[in-house]
Amino acid sequence: MTLAEGILAGDQRAIARLITIVENRPREAIPALQALYPHTGKALVVGITGPPGSGKSTLVGRLTKRLRQLGKTVGIIAVDPTSPFTGGAILGDRIRMQDLATDPGVYIRSMGTRGSLGGLAKATHNVIKILDAAGKDYIFVETVGVGQSEVDIVKTADTTLVVLVPGLGDDIQTIKAGILEIADIFVVNKADRQDAGRVVAELEMMLDLSSKEVEWRPPVYSTVATSGKGIDAVVEGIEQHIHYLCQNSKLEARRRERYRAEIMNIVKEGIITQLLDFWSVGGKLETLLAEVAAREKDPYAAAWEIMQTFTGNGKGGS
Amino acid sequence: MTLAEGILAGDQRAIARLITIVENRPREAIPALQALYPHTGKALVVGITGPPGSGKSTLVGRLTKRLRQLGKTVGIIAVDPTSPFTGGAILGDRIRMQDLATDPGVYIRSMGTRGSLGGLAKATHNVIKILDAAGKDYIFVETVGVGQSEVDIVKTADTTLVVLVPGLGDDIQTIKAGILEIADIFVVNKADRQDAGRVVAELEMMLDLSSKEVEWRPPVYSTVATSGKGIDAVVEGIEQHIHYLCQNSKLEARRRERYRAEIMNIVKEGIITQLLDFWSVGGKLETLLAEVAAREKDPYAAAWEIMQTFTGNGKGGS
Repeated sequence: MTLAEGILAGDQRAIARLITIVENRPREAIPALQALYPHTGKALVVGITGPPGSGKSTLVGRLTKRLRQLGKTVGIIAVDPTSPFTGGAILGDRIRMQDLATDPGVYIRSMGTRGSLGGLAKATHNVIKILDAAGKDYIFVETVGVGQSEVDIVKTADTTLVVLVPGLGDDIQTIKAGILEIADIFVVNKADRQDAGRVVAELEMMLDLSSKEVEWRPPVYSTVATSGKGIDAVVEGIEQHIHYLCQNSKLEARRRERYRAEIMNIVKEGIITQLLDFWSVGGKLETLLAEVAAREKDPYAAAWEIMQTFTGNGKGGS
Repeated sequence: MTLAEGILAGDQRAIARLITIVENRPREAIPALQALYPHTGKALVVGITGPPGSGKSTLVGRLTKRLRQLGKTVGIIAVDPTSPFTGGAILGDRIRMQDLATDPGVYIRSMGTRGSLGGLAKATHNVIKILDAAGKDYIFVETVGVGQSEVDIVKTADTTLVVLVPGLGDDIQTIKAGILEIADIFVVNKADRQDAGRVVAELEMMLDLSSKEVEWRPPVYSTVATSGKGIDAVVEGIEQHIHYLCQNSKLEARRRERYRAEIMNIVKEGIITQLLDFWSVGGKLETLLAEVAAREKDPYAAAWEIMQTFTGNGKGGS
């Protein structure tokens, strides 16, 4: 049985093995990913983001339990782009999700940056495909923080949940603003805390002021993930959003944009690899860099020089 | 007088005009950036990052005042990648830096994402070049947060300051780990707060455990930016780090890596533009995307198809 066949059969060890290859030697994973690709596209991908300490992992655990009750299988990818070390927070969260780990209908994987800060978004996209091909109905992609890399990761999702909590201070207001763009659903967690009502009211006000997409106004749910309060409503909210996307051919459109971005990234990387191979011969690239460093050439002129040797006339087409 | 000539003469309005072009219509800025390029490379670029609320802007204000006392000119770029809206926090900080704004030896500019989350790092690199060509001795690049985009921005710096504060809770520990990689200098601000000593001790312990670069061990400074306490030592620390870089030809090596990355980014973008131009004709790209969406082709096969029409045999060289 090949690795791809094992994954299609839902074998947990095969899944783990291919993910490890994707993380460490991505080129070697390509044949298996190609073999799996025709079997992808069935899973619903739910992105979850929000500031550290907002209880995302506990929330994901609760949502997963609810979906399991409804007979669905679930994959969970916990991504920590901020830490190139083994993420302490994520480890703690995994212990909290311990009872899920023994459920064969659930697959949980943590992903850190392992030294290289780039490539995490790409690896995450590939892990989603693996879990999708393995037959998971829902895939949660949980990210720590709200920076650019989180946004890139979240772009992979069909539905994005943004989790906020009361009492994180005024600086959170700034973060919130950036997040309006990507939220399909808001969850105010730790809603038993003081000021939870104010956070909900502020969000609703921001949504009133934002006129961007009138067809879908992100709903705001209040939860207490530790006790499970409000979880069923969030699961219904996710299903409503997916339903909305399907009705308007928006799911297809969103996914097509993802394919476009993914293909273009493979192209970019492939072309850069070829260029570097070509320009490394005889130290040509180093000579060019030295000229730029000495201000004999500017970076644009150098870039055009590289492009020209590659494309002949500097225009597309062969 | 051309825009580039105005900038070389240090004209504040010319600087502001070109920055606006860089932000809104980057292609149009290229000729001016090319004209300025031979006059760049003199400024020392200092990156400042750290969690929201750590007092980065106040610190930058104080460092700037000290450098002005020492007869240096300063550019300040405040970058907020998290907020596509006008950043509330940055606006507040600018008011705090108000007395600097009237000093002709200081140029301050805030940069947000303006809807498009990509391209901010590139725009920041170009603004650094503009201020460099305009004759600023020091350029501070201040970013909110500690995600991937901040790291990308900070990579532009010759020296990177990471600012931490006591009392931001345990989650900060996770963030700290990711930051060890990029810090040349640590500043524990708000050092008059309880627990400041503990943060310093924790940092020193982390540095002891990290064996990465033995030649330069990042110093840890304690400051109270609001009162100016500890600022002179940080300025000296920055100068020591620059001195260390120069002594070991490391400044040159760091900058050369930046040129390499910048040139490769221009190449990638240029080639993708050409590819899209070529593939958009007759809806060829949409047809290919539809095939990928229908699982008739996988993304790798589609990418290779695109590369092949462009490079002929799929290999570098013309």
